Amino acid sequence: MLSKKVLKDIQSLSAKKQRREQGLFLAEGPKIAAELVALMPARVVGIYATQPWIDRNGNLPSSVQSVVEPVTETELQRISQLQTPNEVVLVARQQEAAEPVAGPGITLYLDTIQDPGNFGTIVRIADWFGVRDIVCSGGCADLYNPKVVQSTMGSIARVNVWYDEEETWLDRQRVPVLAAALDGVPLSAVGRPERAILLIGNEGKGLRPGLLARAASTLTIPRVGDAESLNAAVATGIILSHLT
Amino acid sequence: MLSKKVLKDIQSLSAKKQRREQGLFLAEGPKIAAELVALMPARVVGIYATQPWIDRNGNLPSSVQSVVEPVTETELQRISQLQTPNEVVLVARQQEAAEPVAGPGITLYLDTIQDPGNFGTIVRIADWFGVRDIVCSGGCADLYNPKVVQSTMGSIARVNVWYDEEETWLDRQRVPVLAAALDGVPLSAVGRPERAILLIGNEGKGLRPGLLARAASTLTIPRVGDAESLNAAVATGIILSHLT
Repeated sequence: MLSKKVLKDIQSLSAKKQRREQGLFLAEGPKIAAELVALMPARVVGIYATQPWIDRNGNLPSSVQSVVEPVTETELQRISQLQTPNEVVLVARQQEAAEPVAGPGITLYLDTIQDPGNFGTIVRIADWFGVRDIVCSGGCADLYNPKVVQSTMGSIARVNVWYDEEETWLDRQRVPVLAAALDGVPLSAVGRPERAILLIGNEGKGLRPGLLARAASTLTIPRVGDAESLNAAVATGIILSHLT
Repeated sequence: MLSKKVLKDIQSLSAKKQRREQGLFLAEGPKIAAELVALMPARVVGIYATQPWIDRNGNLPSSVQSVVEPVTETELQRISQLQTPNEVVLVARQQEAAEPVAGPGITLYLDTIQDPGNFGTIVRIADWFGVRDIVCSGGCADLYNPKVVQSTMGSIARVNVWYDEEETWLDRQRVPVLAAALDGVPLSAVGRPERAILLIGNEGKGLRPGLLARAASTLTIPRVGDAESLNAAVATGIILSHLT
């Protein structure tokens, strides 16, 4: 049985402030648990799982330091952030993010991407297209929000996500800046750059004017039909598919 | 004040069975409400809104038949499906879907797309790229699930979504069938077809073999990095961007 202190410690990680202070985060469900155990075994510090999960996953890699704590369904419900808790809650150490320098290939810069699902999906897309670094403006969702972790589908272990809290990072780069926006050059008219920073704007509001002004060119996904806009993650996928 | 009967009628629309029987659906929040009022005014049959929303939206188009019922925050909470109810709940009539015939351009066929957010986002992407018809296998999410409605961002009013419950639709078509899968021809090697059916598979499992076998060619989005897969909606966006 979990002690009150352990229950409280795990629950506290639903808050960003606590996650930052402790340098920890939560991941839930068998799929993401399996991915994090495989991809970052040394960073897994706690595994809280029901007996069926333990029966199926008895042999964890030896690099996983953490023991597996069996929990009852009731305990799982108390530590879970999900409406329908799902077998396992994992506690892992956050990765210290490094400030990237935009070099060969594409570096993504996200402006105020607030929707956790979109944010996590963008990390996954970046990983698919070989983008190693994502820089986030201060207003972006927290990478370690459980919904973001979930949506990255394991790519959180491979992509370096760094927060540009003071929004001065672009000033230090020496690489062409491209912006995704609604009134730019059609994608098909743009070649594959050897190196570039790609700015992606907020789901509803687009890029802030100060950022848009930094771009040497503005790219647009040609619209054939009538939808007003595309989801930010979908737009990022389409542009990266074209640029990489 | 809303009567118990009205409260109950609205609440019942959270269930697919009730939505089908009554031919109605729910949409929530100022953004989607504004879109549906603008795009399908004659199909809006109920608007339940807090005073601030009514103050801002006093002048509805005359084609909206429904009166606006003022509701208190407490009533809104009772009729809302959202964790954080947001000013307005709208009840609208479902569109009678027509069985499409695959003709010029692209027709989408979705196999067991179950995640409501992905499904709605695919409807929105189809609308952006001028795809008029989507055919869904029986296992797809319900178009009128409130989360699907939300994710379509108004495109639900413009795209014809038809359910192929018996899964015999493909037999009746005379158009080349393409499939999105992980081990096909790279997208860049495929031209823009004049007409085609594009098969998109389930988020986790991909296309069922029986469907995959129907495809004349299989398309793959080249991977540069390490992610295992792409989100189904993102993949659909990238392929449609290439094919249209």
